[in-house]
Amino acid sequence: MKIVIYNEYTKNQLSPIGKRAYKEGLHKEIASVFDGSDVEVAFLSTLPDLLNHTANDITYDKLRDVDVLYWWGHCDHDKVPDEVVDAVVKRVHKGMGIIFLHSAHFSKVIKKLLGTPCSLTWREVGEAERVWTVSPKHPIAQGVEQGFRIPHEEMYGEHFNIPTPDEVVFVGWFQGGEVFRSGVTFTREKGRIFYFQPGHETFPNYKNPNIRIILKNAAYWCARQEDKIAIVNKTYKDAPNVHPCESIPLIHFSGKVKQGKEED
Amino acid sequence: MKIVIYNEYTKNQLSPIGKRAYKEGLHKEIASVFDGSDVEVAFLSTLPDLLNHTANDITYDKLRDVDVLYWWGHCDHDKVPDEVVDAVVKRVHKGMGIIFLHSAHFSKVIKKLLGTPCSLTWREVGEAERVWTVSPKHPIAQGVEQGFRIPHEEMYGEHFNIPTPDEVVFVGWFQGGEVFRSGVTFTREKGRIFYFQPGHETFPNYKNPNIRIILKNAAYWCARQEDKIAIVNKTYKDAPNVHPCESIPLIHFSGKVKQGKEED
Amino acid sequence: MKIVIYNEYTKNQLSPIGKRAYKEGLHKEIASVFDGSDVEVAFLSTLPDLLNHTANDITYDKLRDVDVLYWWGHCDHDKVPDEVVDAVVKRVHKGMGIIFLHSAHFSKVIKKLLGTPCSLTWREVGEAERVWTVSPKHPIAQGVEQGFRIPHEEMYGEHFNIPTPDEVVFVGWFQGGEVFRSGVTFTREKGRIFYFQPGHETFPNYKNPNIRIILKNAAYWCARQEDKIAIVNKTYKDAPNVHPCESIPLIHFSGKVKQGKEED
Amino acid sequence: MKIVIYNEYTKNQLSPIGKRAYKEGLHKEIASVFDGSDVEVAFLSTLPDLLNHTANDITYDKLRDVDVLYWWGHCDHDKVPDEVVDAVVKRVHKGMGIIFLHSAHFSKVIKKLLGTPCSLTWREVGEAERVWTVSPKHPIAQGVEQGFRIPHEEMYGEHFNIPTPDEVVFVGWFQGGEVFRSGVTFTREKGRIFYFQPGHETFPNYKNPNIRIILKNAAYWCARQEDKIAIVNKTYKDAPNVHPCESIPLIHFSGKVKQGKEED
Repeated sequence: MKIVIYNEYTKNQLSPIGKRAYKEGLHKEIASVFDGSDVEVAFLSTLPDLLNHTANDITYDKLRDVDVLYWWGHCDHDKVPDEVVDAVVKRVHKGMGIIFLHSAHFSKVIKKLLGTPCSLTWREVGEAERVWTVSPKHPIAQGVEQGFRIPHEEMYGEHFNIPTPDEVVFVGWFQGGEVFRSGVTFTREKGRIFYFQPGHETFPNYKNPNIRIILKNAAYWCARQEDKIAIVNKTYKDAPNVHPCESIPLIHFSGKVKQGKEED
Repeated sequence: MKIVIYNEYTKNQLSPIGKRAYKEGLHKEIASVFDGSDVEVAFLSTLPDLLNHTANDITYDKLRDVDVLYWWGHCDHDKVPDEVVDAVVKRVHKGMGIIFLHSAHFSKVIKKLLGTPCSLTWREVGEAERVWTVSPKHPIAQGVEQGFRIPHEEMYGEHFNIPTPDEVVFVGWFQGGEVFRSGVTFTREKGRIFYFQPGHETFPNYKNPNIRIILKNAAYWCARQEDKIAIVNKTYKDAPNVHPCESIPLIHFSGKVKQGKEED
Repeated sequence: MKIVIYNEYTKNQLSPIGKRAYKEGLHKEIASVFDGSDVEVAFLSTLPDLLNHTANDITYDKLRDVDVLYWWGHCDHDKVPDEVVDAVVKRVHKGMGIIFLHSAHFSKVIKKLLGTPCSLTWREVGEAERVWTVSPKHPIAQGVEQGFRIPHEEMYGEHFNIPTPDEVVFVGWFQGGEVFRSGVTFTREKGRIFYFQPGHETFPNYKNPNIRIILKNAAYWCARQEDKIAIVNKTYKDAPNVHPCESIPLIHFSGKVKQGKEED
Repeated sequence: MKIVIYNEYTKNQLSPIGKRAYKEGLHKEIASVFDGSDVEVAFLSTLPDLLNHTANDITYDKLRDVDVLYWWGHCDHDKVPDEVVDAVVKRVHKGMGIIFLHSAHFSKVIKKLLGTPCSLTWREVGEAERVWTVSPKHPIAQGVEQGFRIPHEEMYGEHFNIPTPDEVVFVGWFQGGEVFRSGVTFTREKGRIFYFQPGHETFPNYKNPNIRIILKNAAYWCARQEDKIAIVNKTYKDAPNVHPCESIPLIHFSGKVKQGKEED
């Protein structure tokens, strides 16, 4: 399997706070989920000084044997030439998988594939997020802890202006009160598409073990190699009662509401 | 339009805490959303002493001219005879709309229509909920405030064990950290189906103005009379920044994360 | 309701065979489905000599109060300026409905909204088509005869290279052996989209009564005014046996296969 | 992988015409698609005299390690006990795949999983069918010839009364003028479901090479072992012209319609 990671790798990422999150760039962190495997990983960027390749270099021919392309962009969406956008879209049609990460929701490529503005609401205060699996049978969700916690993340909130996804795999819960369809899949001709919300450049969340599983599973799924993903056959209890969560003590009893019992 | 509300109306609802929430029963509260309209509303219950009709009386013939059936059940799901279940399902196939409320997720009727166990997780501590519209174009969402707040509700959490819905209209956010697909639609033959999560019998949430709009819109949508629903043509800003919410002060800054600016 | 019909109205339509099908242009034929109603209809074309407006004139402002745009194009897809495409797409996002007819499957606008090449197979020998409703509950299908016949139409065949539609309403059967998803719906942000296959410029099929019902229903549905569509509450027999069709005597018994009876 | 084939194997199949189609029973024919593989196949039937096991013997425990169950029934749907239906449905929820063949559309099990009557129209004159792939990227469609021909099959026609499928993989074309969604997928909890229309008991169509590929692919897909399916990366031309088909000379030119050329 051959993978390419596009990361614009510009000012926010090169700032001290960006460097503190990912010393060598978030593309390196993403690439490291394939350490020890036989997956071949290459990088692309908008910044020619730091990396050998730039978005401007992307052509259909260079993508011809690429199985999956990760796309991380934010400040420089407009600098990606239309020719590059066309080449990527055409390659997706012919079967290349593509994974859009975080602020790539506003990239030209995803807009051209989905046909909607892909807008959302946002807040950047480093609040906590939880990520819930709503489609536990999906290959991308295998091995992912239900409702796993991210200490700090930029909030992305609904309404997320996308077409109805093929499948909603994950829904994010944010400390400040919002929700978001954080992991969604689409298909365009032969190409599989996955959008995944976590990954603001100033929080080192691509080091989070659950997110690393998702990043890896997503690549295998997008490449139609889901046999490389170990299926976790969880048994669900019919209707488990959940104790008030302890690690984030959010529930402040008002004293006026007494806990009832479901069965009497 | 002719509507029937089934409410089991048994012990939890007749207890002091239930009576405090709905003095005359939650079915009366639901019915009152149609006050002043020409909609005809009738009631059914499992409790013959309080109401003239019981679930046992439901037949296909009695439902023949009913446009929409609301179904609220919890403790007495098993007391609903299979003949009644078959009659309701058959009538849904022929075009009657049906709205399943809260704990009706475990009713025999919804299981027979959807073909899955419809299990979920739950916690009953009266925590806050917010309800987010993820499908703002849906008729049921018209006029509903984005992310409206419910002070106290029973938590229902994912994984909600249903087939992929036709449309996810609402996603609920819970104070304790969970999310839930709180408003979902299905179609079975000619019958439209809406499941809506809020409505625990001990919290008077059917008095909530946003929920009352949803209850009413849902009936018109299920009856294929969405022309009775006023379309609200909101204009969305492309990517609005959201200030940390004030009425529920959930975000406790750690002092370590400084608010950044999205654009620099 | 305000409707605009875009018809490129160029050489094939202006040829003798085109003129024989539609003396005054197929846009006039489409417009006539609203005769006697209070729907306001305007025209646009690529041909400035014949009509007062051209595709080049289309701006967001001119579409601002348009509810539904019909789009018929074939030879001149490439002459539609990108600015026009952008304006139409933006207006669809904001709620304008759009109906793509026949060879509009290759228009720039539909490709930009759907994100796929929208290719298909074709054959132009004037073979017979039948149009089957697979979603009888859909508003666009109300009043349409099941399996209605079109004497002559250009064949469009699968694979139709589109994203999975929100709903497949009609499937076309062709005399030569092909099938096609002839009526499909999509949603992009607030805009409803309907693609409908029949309508080759040399066959007068927009005069077909069933097609006229579809053209009209589709406008009301795309404008979210489905209350203007009379619901036809058909009763289906459980599993009707269908006699060998008589008007198109396609079934030539080989003499080797004897008709069995289903039940014994 | 462990597979069980349920075949009612009663009168129509045991009649001379049934025996001529499948000398040893259609279950044996289906089983033979796994000849030479390490797939373990067992049989179940309603007829205790011919086979060692019957539908009545099916229990949850016996299905516990079964990956995929094929279900072929017709005359004896009603003889399958409700306890068996419940056990099969429960096992599907827990992850067993299930493939419903031909007249199994009316089995109790599929109705319980889908929640609709699953009715259709039919005609049994042995007419020709063609099977078109509308979802060429689906694993079940890999290696299947586009529009392959079946000389004689019972006609099943729309409207097929099922919920909107997860995916429509195949659409059938019938000589007499009907179409049918011949291959459709669903998911219920963890269980994958495939319905496939061809397979009337008096035509030996499970010997058809394309159908055998579908039967085999479907098992691997339902068992979530799609890595066992070889992906066929077809290149589609953008809009191929199709010559009037020759082997079934259905197109009788009326003499009034002249073949035009698409481009002028």
